[in-house]
Amino acid sequence: MVTPEDYAHAHAARFRQELFELLRIPSVSTGSKHAEDLLRAAHWLAEHLRRIGLDSELLSTQRHPLVYGERKTTAEGAATVLVYGHYDVEPAAVEDGRTSEPFTPIEREGKIWARGATDDKGQLFALLKGIESILETRGDLPVNLKVMIEGEEESGSESLATLLERDHEKLSADVCVIADSAMEEIESPAIVYALRGVSVMSLKVHGPATALHSGRFGGSVHNPAQALAEILARLHDADGRVAVPGFCDGIPALAEKERAVIAGDAWSLEQWSEQTGSPKPWGEQEYTLRERVTARPSLEIVGMAGGCVEEGIEASIPPIARATLFCRLVTDQDPEHVWECTRRYVEAPTPQTVRSELAYMGGAPAVVMDRGCPAMQAARRAYERGWGRSPRFVREGGSIPIVSAIRTALKMPVVLMSFGLRSDNLHAPNEHLSVEMFRRGVDTAIALFDELARSD
Amino acid sequence: MVTPEDYAHAHAARFRQELFELLRIPSVSTGSKHAEDLLRAAHWLAEHLRRIGLDSELLSTQRHPLVYGERKTTAEGAATVLVYGHYDVEPAAVEDGRTSEPFTPIEREGKIWARGATDDKGQLFALLKGIESILETRGDLPVNLKVMIEGEEESGSESLATLLERDHEKLSADVCVIADSAMEEIESPAIVYALRGVSVMSLKVHGPATALHSGRFGGSVHNPAQALAEILARLHDADGRVAVPGFCDGIPALAEKERAVIAGDAWSLEQWSEQTGSPKPWGEQEYTLRERVTARPSLEIVGMAGGCVEEGIEASIPPIARATLFCRLVTDQDPEHVWECTRRYVEAPTPQTVRSELAYMGGAPAVVMDRGCPAMQAARRAYERGWGRSPRFVREGGSIPIVSAIRTALKMPVVLMSFGLRSDNLHAPNEHLSVEMFRRGVDTAIALFDELARSD
Repeated sequence: MVTPEDYAHAHAARFRQELFELLRIPSVSTGSKHAEDLLRAAHWLAEHLRRIGLDSELLSTQRHPLVYGERKTTAEGAATVLVYGHYDVEPAAVEDGRTSEPFTPIEREGKIWARGATDDKGQLFALLKGIESILETRGDLPVNLKVMIEGEEESGSESLATLLERDHEKLSADVCVIADSAMEEIESPAIVYALRGVSVMSLKVHGPATALHSGRFGGSVHNPAQALAEILARLHDADGRVAVPGFCDGIPALAEKERAVIAGDAWSLEQWSEQTGSPKPWGEQEYTLRERVTARPSLEIVGMAGGCVEEGIEASIPPIARATLFCRLVTDQDPEHVWECTRRYVEAPTPQTVRSELAYMGGAPAVVMDRGCPAMQAARRAYERGWGRSPRFVREGGSIPIVSAIRTALKMPVVLMSFGLRSDNLHAPNEHLSVEMFRRGVDTAIALFDELARSD
Repeated sequence: MVTPEDYAHAHAARFRQELFELLRIPSVSTGSKHAEDLLRAAHWLAEHLRRIGLDSELLSTQRHPLVYGERKTTAEGAATVLVYGHYDVEPAAVEDGRTSEPFTPIEREGKIWARGATDDKGQLFALLKGIESILETRGDLPVNLKVMIEGEEESGSESLATLLERDHEKLSADVCVIADSAMEEIESPAIVYALRGVSVMSLKVHGPATALHSGRFGGSVHNPAQALAEILARLHDADGRVAVPGFCDGIPALAEKERAVIAGDAWSLEQWSEQTGSPKPWGEQEYTLRERVTARPSLEIVGMAGGCVEEGIEASIPPIARATLFCRLVTDQDPEHVWECTRRYVEAPTPQTVRSELAYMGGAPAVVMDRGCPAMQAARRAYERGWGRSPRFVREGGSIPIVSAIRTALKMPVVLMSFGLRSDNLHAPNEHLSVEMFRRGVDTAIALFDELARSD
């Protein structure tokens, strides 16, 4: 008898060709330029779900549709599993340092190179191909299956919150499975049990009414670019700690037991240096590198602009300067409270020579999940069978805002699988996914549905 | 007999139509996009010089040609006057707040609106139309005339320095006349006797090798945008004074006599507020507003950029952040010394967690000229006759780097005429020039050549 694994191995080349079709669609959800591409990706996925044996439909939203699919099992009293993924990707064209076209996927050196290869089209696809492999060989799934694939994960998942409320019943399940994270090394698979939250803010500093000649006015006007620099420089103290009063409200001391778990996922200086290319680590000295990026908050300037640095030099004092602040939060920071504290800190001491405003762009709290629950243990066994290694439980520094939304709205445990590597350059130029890991991801997905059926 | 003034008044409408032709050419010299437009403007001017009665030619340079014209007088022992102007303009399209197309000149509310209307095409044109009016009515000029019009004033006048050396003899004269500055009000014409110098620098801060996911790395990496803000915030002290050690080396105390002259050109808070639209003045409290922008140095961030603030939010730590610093200098600051001091200050305390570099982009020293010399007094009389008002001698906060280059290379006094207003928005959106001032400029130009002939 052909097993699901046999089927997956026999069809591996086709699986990748299909993935390439999806990767070719530039479904960038930040900005508004790619609305049609997002719709194209959604239709492609809905059709693909039908092809592998699910009923599917598009659930319309204010922005980009959610792809929904489902398939009932014939097994009596089986659990219902909700698979979540996203078909949108980060922007890609404007970044520096790119060596291949982001939306022309290629296979090279055993890797699939494309924007979305790992985040999240490739990892989602491993789950879908696991489902296909089971259905094509057994004609049935061991669990009831629901699939939801959204198109706004990289731009705030606004519509999903509405859908989780509106289609509460349709989306309810016993457990949610997401493959949208990353492990350190292929032989060291990981189940993410903690994610940082986010709080995003937009800072504007207004100075003169219009650009001013720096000769005629320079020395008498507070330059908003300078005022912005003065504000930004005050956000951290000399030790790399966020200096905003109240920013860290609610953060409990890091327990020794947690530190021990995090130490199991240590990040050597050598690994850090290789992955960042930065001259030297920075940040809170009393925490390890891994702790700094998973168990401590951060405040990053992800963009700043004022005046003109391109195309020669325009000798003008700019009328406005801007920055975007992207904060990563830990338990139990509240995203809006973090913004309120930062706003008070930024706006209050602003000299009256300029006017500044800090707007809230959105956020989500951090999530820490129970490593011992049945679903987590089923995921552990799935890695042992499908990946061939026992997984570690790790914390992740990134954020999947919908994890806390799903936990809150649908009241179910969320299992975060990783089929990608931390070095896959997600949110950076030259994103990629290892072909071997994609293969093991499909095997692990096959095992996962069996183990979840057994895990009540 | 028809006087030059009669001729000018009779032909005023045509003069403006001709000026519009020149204003329509987008001769932007920063960047490289407008090389052909610059060449077109140069040819247009060379042809125009011939049409008004001069011999003309283009002197080729490494970049944009210099338009050269000359005409000998029949008067014995007459002085030689060198007229300088520039046909290039500041960039215009990308700025905010524009209400008319910068290269589609229009006349509205008694003003000519276009990029270059005042800086410098309009002011230069007043001199040329003065020359035409004299030649058309008398058939001769009272002085020997040389005209040089360059195409790189807004981008550093690099070629001019070479030309001043190479064509030293061709360009030598007894006095140089430039109309490229501005007065406060039409009934208060001004002769500029002091200009600030410049020193331009480009600051780059390098962090990680590539853009990094702010979740995976945020808290462990020194963000170059933040490091840049930290550097920029240290450039001024809390009182608005440049905090760079050595920056002010060589600046003499401001003499009471000078302060009295500057006070004659006072800048009220009301005027300042109307012209800047800024909430409140800023800078060195112990100096008046006019002193701050004419007799004190300034250091402006004219551009800064890092990461992405446009098109949604990319949650990445940028690999690099940049700023352009535009310093205005006073006597006797040395532009390169100012850069050296800033470089030491910026690069030394940079934390080893990033790498920063400050490059020198060019500069010129400040200029203070003798208000009592014969040429200055001839200019004073020209305003009295042509403008109808006795001019004040004023300092200008802007820089005309070629003034010191001409003074040094050609050893002659330079007379800086103003036919524009400080509120004409040069180097800002909505540049314009008053029609009435253009008319008075032509009359004053006519008087100027007569007065210079008498001023030995």
